[in-house]
Amino acid sequence: MNDTEQQAEWITRQILQELAANRSAKTSAAVALEIPVGVSNRHVHLNREDMDILFGYGSLLTRFKAVRQPGQYAAAETVTLRGPKGELSKVRVLGPLRATTQVEISVADGFALGVSAPVRMSGDLLDSPGIEIIGPAGRVVKRQGTIVAWRHIHISPEEAERHGLRDGMEIEVQGDGPRGGVLSHVVVRVSAEAVLELHIDVEEANGFGLRNGDIVQGIKQGARYE
Amino acid sequence: MNDTEQQAEWITRQILQELAANRSAKTSAAVALEIPVGVSNRHVHLNREDMDILFGYGSLLTRFKAVRQPGQYAAAETVTLRGPKGELSKVRVLGPLRATTQVEISVADGFALGVSAPVRMSGDLLDSPGIEIIGPAGRVVKRQGTIVAWRHIHISPEEAERHGLRDGMEIEVQGDGPRGGVLSHVVVRVSAEAVLELHIDVEEANGFGLRNGDIVQGIKQGARYE
Repeated sequence: MNDTEQQAEWITRQILQELAANRSAKTSAAVALEIPVGVSNRHVHLNREDMDILFGYGSLLTRFKAVRQPGQYAAAETVTLRGPKGELSKVRVLGPLRATTQVEISVADGFALGVSAPVRMSGDLLDSPGIEIIGPAGRVVKRQGTIVAWRHIHISPEEAERHGLRDGMEIEVQGDGPRGGVLSHVVVRVSAEAVLELHIDVEEANGFGLRNGDIVQGIKQGARYE
Repeated sequence: MNDTEQQAEWITRQILQELAANRSAKTSAAVALEIPVGVSNRHVHLNREDMDILFGYGSLLTRFKAVRQPGQYAAAETVTLRGPKGELSKVRVLGPLRATTQVEISVADGFALGVSAPVRMSGDLLDSPGIEIIGPAGRVVKRQGTIVAWRHIHISPEEAERHGLRDGMEIEVQGDGPRGGVLSHVVVRVSAEAVLELHIDVEEANGFGLRNGDIVQGIKQGARYE
């Protein structure tokens, strides 16, 4: 072997070592973003006006059960949803009251009601289908506001910054088990009071074999979080 | 630049080109395995003995609707399933009759019935929970046989060989859209008469935003199929 060949072999070795080091840094040195799962059943958010009609003027929501996100709760109050093809009764109201009434159902609920609800983030109600909401004191016919919730995580500003996440970004989430896999297009919602949690609906949870409190892994741009 | 340096630079360039070529071969030159989706609602397979009890001695299944797999069909006959917590009526029987009765439900159905059915491949019924099946002529109490179907593809021997797949292997399947993602642990079922199809249940379909006849991509060991 002459000098040139030796030099070339040395350089080749250096390059290959460099490449190997890069590869292992990406796959093993990362610290995962571990996200607890929160499963949402169908529910309704009400504004003051609709609350008045459905439960009586000036009526208040009764706190039934806390949910993981601070300030939010499942109310004792329930309503019936009526669509062109069917009804769903005992649909829980989530508190507190909001500026806009919003109905969140599953895809299967949409078939049962005859309402073709789009997959949307909370608050993104433009051109979403309407629905009839029936309460003990009255009923309201909403012109829009029925959606299937877009999968998302809640995260605090501190934790978001630590993981290089910004409000509105999309990440992927990986779960294990026989029905494991990757959920793409998980929207990041950053808010001051947020507790880290993946919000998915019952069908997403059952389809992925996930339950409340299970832990899934956040994935960013194809690589585990550092 | 001396000879050695020039030589080293040339080798470096060769290696980098080689690496780049390898990478692009893996990601772009592959021909995808495109799999049509078949969504299974809850259903029952009956053996001769249970058919006799439920629908009358010597009764025959009535062909109601063909399914994609040759020889299989949805029957006109339906049964009621009864578990400790509830009932599900109008559950369709799938024909033809089989050697063993088997009940396939969703995770949500399991909650409604009060039956904790495991995710299993068809025929793998050991220690699966029992259920009561009620027909127009009688009822049977099964000691086992209630499962949630394990996601799988049907594929012919020729197509399997073309894609390097063997019966019993697991692949991944990728879907697009707002609820896109990757389904892991999709079992490959090779059989002579099979037509290429991904079988998932209603919750998997709705959780992934998939419908009957949608096309998903087969993925093998992290890379698209060649």
